[in-house]
Amino acid sequence: MSNVYVVGAGQTAFGAFPDESYRSLFADAYREALDSVAGDLPPDAIDEAVVGTLGVGGRQLGLSAPAVTEHVGLHGVPASRVENACAAGGFAVRQGVQAIESGMADVVLAGGVEVMTDASADTTKYWLGVSGETEWERLTGTTFSGVYAQMARAYLDQYDATTEDLARVAVKNHANGAQNPKAHLDFACSLADATDAPPVADPLNLYHCCPTSDGAAVVLLAGGDVVGEYTDDRVRVAGVGAGSDRVGLADRDSYTSISASREAGQQAYEMAGIGSDDLDFAEVHDCFAIAELLAYEDLGFCDPGDANRLLREGLTDRDGDLPVNTSGGLKSKGHPIGATGTGQIVEAFDQLTGQAGSRQLDDPTCGLTHNVGGSGGGAVVHVLEREAGR
Amino acid sequence: MSNVYVVGAGQTAFGAFPDESYRSLFADAYREALDSVAGDLPPDAIDEAVVGTLGVGGRQLGLSAPAVTEHVGLHGVPASRVENACAAGGFAVRQGVQAIESGMADVVLAGGVEVMTDASADTTKYWLGVSGETEWERLTGTTFSGVYAQMARAYLDQYDATTEDLARVAVKNHANGAQNPKAHLDFACSLADATDAPPVADPLNLYHCCPTSDGAAVVLLAGGDVVGEYTDDRVRVAGVGAGSDRVGLADRDSYTSISASREAGQQAYEMAGIGSDDLDFAEVHDCFAIAELLAYEDLGFCDPGDANRLLREGLTDRDGDLPVNTSGGLKSKGHPIGATGTGQIVEAFDQLTGQAGSRQLDDPTCGLTHNVGGSGGGAVVHVLEREAGR
Repeated sequence: MSNVYVVGAGQTAFGAFPDESYRSLFADAYREALDSVAGDLPPDAIDEAVVGTLGVGGRQLGLSAPAVTEHVGLHGVPASRVENACAAGGFAVRQGVQAIESGMADVVLAGGVEVMTDASADTTKYWLGVSGETEWERLTGTTFSGVYAQMARAYLDQYDATTEDLARVAVKNHANGAQNPKAHLDFACSLADATDAPPVADPLNLYHCCPTSDGAAVVLLAGGDVVGEYTDDRVRVAGVGAGSDRVGLADRDSYTSISASREAGQQAYEMAGIGSDDLDFAEVHDCFAIAELLAYEDLGFCDPGDANRLLREGLTDRDGDLPVNTSGGLKSKGHPIGATGTGQIVEAFDQLTGQAGSRQLDDPTCGLTHNVGGSGGGAVVHVLEREAGR
Repeated sequence: MSNVYVVGAGQTAFGAFPDESYRSLFADAYREALDSVAGDLPPDAIDEAVVGTLGVGGRQLGLSAPAVTEHVGLHGVPASRVENACAAGGFAVRQGVQAIESGMADVVLAGGVEVMTDASADTTKYWLGVSGETEWERLTGTTFSGVYAQMARAYLDQYDATTEDLARVAVKNHANGAQNPKAHLDFACSLADATDAPPVADPLNLYHCCPTSDGAAVVLLAGGDVVGEYTDDRVRVAGVGAGSDRVGLADRDSYTSISASREAGQQAYEMAGIGSDDLDFAEVHDCFAIAELLAYEDLGFCDPGDANRLLREGLTDRDGDLPVNTSGGLKSKGHPIGATGTGQIVEAFDQLTGQAGSRQLDDPTCGLTHNVGGSGGGAVVHVLEREAGR
């Protein structure tokens, strides 16, 4: 187990906010994170800042970490940007854990931010495209929807699954997102809605794809030596794991499993000393519906090819055995690239500290977050545990 | 002191290489780093990779770390990108040190790469511009040359210094770069050459400015528990420091001192348990000649306003008391953004292990590297020490 704790976590609403900037969004999330600390965390206790962002649209490409930290008064504090496409936020948290475990920091701000909706569709397509494989994907015209469509097609061919199973991911996650006041697409949908939607990249339709969003999320981490100064809520980062794989889908061993996720999950379980059976909930990377099915299997929630059963039987519904994406997930809560991974930690913190409002689970003590870069070139997993005696 | 060692370091030539790609350059630096290990470091010993790059030109913006590590056969290894504009490479090394000190890795690859010369002048200007301050610098037409020109003007006004002192930085660093087969501008220049050059941004002329370059550099780090398996050369990362400041020059306390450098230097000296008097050499961030003068003062080589004396008296020449930028520095060796900070570590490793060829210093045991992001929004300093008994 790591000796690092999440002591505060804040997030803006995810959505389209033409009147906000990446700086104002970051500041809002930062203030909420500070306010969420059960005790009092003075800003000058923050030793280091790590910010995950892709920088979609190119408004601030270099020095984007000090550009946001100076805006909240943290100039002077070492600040660096971590980027791993859609897993930037998750990797920022992991780097924060390393900074504390290294003994070089006691308290670290790990944040993520992205502004996407003010860019044209072509600009956004370009920026997401250059986060994928170049020669065999982007330059041949393949978008991320197209890459995940190939993974979905292979999955449907290989296993007893249907596009209705993909739609079930949307129905479940929209049901959760409808309970989340910070969700981008905060409405429920029916199985018919999610099955009969316009096609995007066959077999994926509109309801099988997450939106692009604006938003920010900030997590405050503290080492075990100092955590008692700031809070009595002990939410430990019990396990951390990360992996990588070939960036291009065609270069990988499988279209129906993401090895970076498997590796990240195994590392995180091992470090936490738990198995997937010990989880009370999980936030997984459902950028496209097929990604949630693969996550169930790569993270050991079920055997390969069995994810559709979990969905059909409602086992990952909010009232099921292992609720997945209670926040609404990327599908309903939204997907502001750099903020997604840190936002998952925010949901886990809120669930573990009983602050998840109408989507609160019944006294959970252990949750997992899973954040994927691109179509699986990188992945990062965290296991969070609420310690007894809170 | 940290318990982390540099066990290998490799670098491509810096220059304009239209037939190379960011992947091929990274691979060349990686191979040279592996070959430089005194013993044998099998690639599968590498637990993690951190890559610094700005991604100038936008060829690969997201997932650029796994995109280069997969190319050298390291897929599976956690790989993430660190960016802090021109300090990306130095921050990548710092993150590698944290990864090892955290106990989450024994051996880390910290690399940097940039391809700049295939972009048009406008594209390069844009990409560098969006790494600076937006509202008051880029959007008003101020380039980095312009920002550093303001710092130079303030310095010349404030102290007994002249543009000839700025030219002395070029003369010294070109003299060193002429001894470095990997330097981009590998020729010597006279004081007259460097004084009478065409203006760029008054008071800076062409010889007061570094070139834009292509190149890559890779450093292999190992923890104290395992270093003996790979090498008997003990080059310890004795100290690490980092700081940040307001991104925009006009928002800062001073035009003639970079507080992020001061903070980073103090941290690194303290961690290493040394002072600037203990240094045998230093590689400092001389993107513009004025930056080298500020570095002398911010890193405690001399008092404020006294840097010109060090240059006039030749104290920082290769045969002086404290040789600075024996590699040629950014001015002569070149400045491929992401590779610059890791390249500084390569020079320090080569000097400390007696592999610096015709520019080899006489048995140095302690060196410093100093890498600045933008005009001082971030800075990172490392102190490297060769341990007795080599």
